[in-house]
Amino acid sequence: MTNRFWRIDRRPEGTDFASALTLVEAPLAPLAEGEIRIRNSHLSMDAGTRMWLTAREDGYQPPLPLGIAMTGLVLGEVVESRAAGFAPGDLVRAFGQWADVSTVDAVMSGAIVLDPSVADRRAWFGPLGMNGWTALWGVEQTGAAKPGERVLVSAAAGATGILAVQIAKLLGCEAWGIVGGDSKWRYLKHEIGVTGVVDYKGSNPGAQLDVAGGFDVYFDNVGGPLLDQVLTRMNHYGRIAVCGLVADYTSGTRTAPREFDQVLMRRLRIEGFFSPDFMHEGPALTARLRAWHEAGELVMPYDVTRGLKNALTAYAKLFTGANIGKVIVELDT
Amino acid sequence: MTNRFWRIDRRPEGTDFASALTLVEAPLAPLAEGEIRIRNSHLSMDAGTRMWLTAREDGYQPPLPLGIAMTGLVLGEVVESRAAGFAPGDLVRAFGQWADVSTVDAVMSGAIVLDPSVADRRAWFGPLGMNGWTALWGVEQTGAAKPGERVLVSAAAGATGILAVQIAKLLGCEAWGIVGGDSKWRYLKHEIGVTGVVDYKGSNPGAQLDVAGGFDVYFDNVGGPLLDQVLTRMNHYGRIAVCGLVADYTSGTRTAPREFDQVLMRRLRIEGFFSPDFMHEGPALTARLRAWHEAGELVMPYDVTRGLKNALTAYAKLFTGANIGKVIVELDT
Repeated sequence: MTNRFWRIDRRPEGTDFASALTLVEAPLAPLAEGEIRIRNSHLSMDAGTRMWLTAREDGYQPPLPLGIAMTGLVLGEVVESRAAGFAPGDLVRAFGQWADVSTVDAVMSGAIVLDPSVADRRAWFGPLGMNGWTALWGVEQTGAAKPGERVLVSAAAGATGILAVQIAKLLGCEAWGIVGGDSKWRYLKHEIGVTGVVDYKGSNPGAQLDVAGGFDVYFDNVGGPLLDQVLTRMNHYGRIAVCGLVADYTSGTRTAPREFDQVLMRRLRIEGFFSPDFMHEGPALTARLRAWHEAGELVMPYDVTRGLKNALTAYAKLFTGANIGKVIVELDT
Repeated sequence: MTNRFWRIDRRPEGTDFASALTLVEAPLAPLAEGEIRIRNSHLSMDAGTRMWLTAREDGYQPPLPLGIAMTGLVLGEVVESRAAGFAPGDLVRAFGQWADVSTVDAVMSGAIVLDPSVADRRAWFGPLGMNGWTALWGVEQTGAAKPGERVLVSAAAGATGILAVQIAKLLGCEAWGIVGGDSKWRYLKHEIGVTGVVDYKGSNPGAQLDVAGGFDVYFDNVGGPLLDQVLTRMNHYGRIAVCGLVADYTSGTRTAPREFDQVLMRRLRIEGFFSPDFMHEGPALTARLRAWHEAGELVMPYDVTRGLKNALTAYAKLFTGANIGKVIVELDT
């Protein structure tokens, strides 16, 4: 039996993924002890994986070697198992391959068996997945948002950002979002219902931020020049939770905040965080997220691309800002 | 009765204080209700006051207006009082004027009556003063240093830095210092006895930092390019306590860390702090500092300049790195 997968042939430049990754076909090797085989139904597209494609050694994860399959979160049914706790037919989420079929070590891949009663399984990638955990952890723990405070979120129409603004509201905060473009602006304002939305592509984003009267928490997915705009508009003792620096990932530049001295002037706290930091809290986070989600208080729009062969088109959306909500590739199974 | 004081006539360029401040003489006005008159015996020279001399409105303190006396911490005896709790002969510390005699509102100036039994009253400016409070707060609270961790301090031969490295040791940490020049290097290494000293003016400071094997806490007084050198040498989950950005104060440039993304890569916490944040803890901090100081475990070298007329020479030392320890002007009384 053969399997199609996306192979990393070189390090991509910017968003030119087609020159770097190739869809190839290869036979499946027999399962080793501890491994499971997953027929992927969905692939999660995540901006954080962009760094694994670079040669950069000092990132938060080491680079993926050339010649292997592209890695990311996958969702699907177990079709074969040599790992305790996993049986054919189980719905699982794991770090697997961008492929028809993922073959992973059950432990190393962080594979978990999911409750099949959740109506839309894609939620395991969004509100009940890494994006949900990240949004909740970043707002509540790293950002230390307290009821009544004003929370600003960048990339607020992205999968993590859209959850972060909703979670801020659910925690009793006033939620503000920064987005790029009018359709995202309208979605945030009217569908999600946040207090303020700033379009950084619009006229004078600084003036749009000025009207808020200062932010207590900035949940930052972006970095770059936007961070400078926000640093001068933070309230004293404000917290900046650095979730991502997507402005850096494809631009070849690196965030170097010129307004850094506001850390001292306003006694700010800037702190980076990352999913492995709270993996041990996963079940507790999921339980809270699921309660909100099932009550209809935590919603997620999905941006779905069909077919493994179209994965690169879906992936590029993360870096061009084309999507609202969670970008997913749905496979033909 | 007339009084000499240093008047701010214009905003200084770099360290050219002589073109900006003038020693003038004026009659003393009668005391208002709530005021005290202090015959200054010592003036404390503090780099943080440099910002008050600029026109910058977004600093942590508003600029001092032109035409008034330069302000700073003073030590001396009360010679006249119209404030409850202050009597002639009391030894006090307050935010007063660079002058023979300071006239201050007792509350607004933060004046406190000091225990005259401390052998060397200059200690009220150093280990028992704002420098001591700042060093202890920054290492223990903002830096959250834990026993066994490695703590790095910049400007480690300055008044706050020299206390910070000693306090790190007293709290059970391994202390490292960054200094400029060989005499400071020797002082830190042999007189204070820290584990490692890095001379940023020496050959390849980065390589000198490399031998430490990573820092858990960085107590930063400097900012500037040194911060980049340290960011890439922090341990995961390390804390950077931003006490000052003295590299910015006279250079006209502003710290803009190019290695900022290490905040995310290493999940660092960067936090600014400033003495008003812990003023309420002053008595408790002083008690702990005094016990160490009287046991001989917390020492301070003093760099003393005699005569009010020489105050600008003393002040400039803070920005040229000429001093070891606390820079003080001792007045002829």
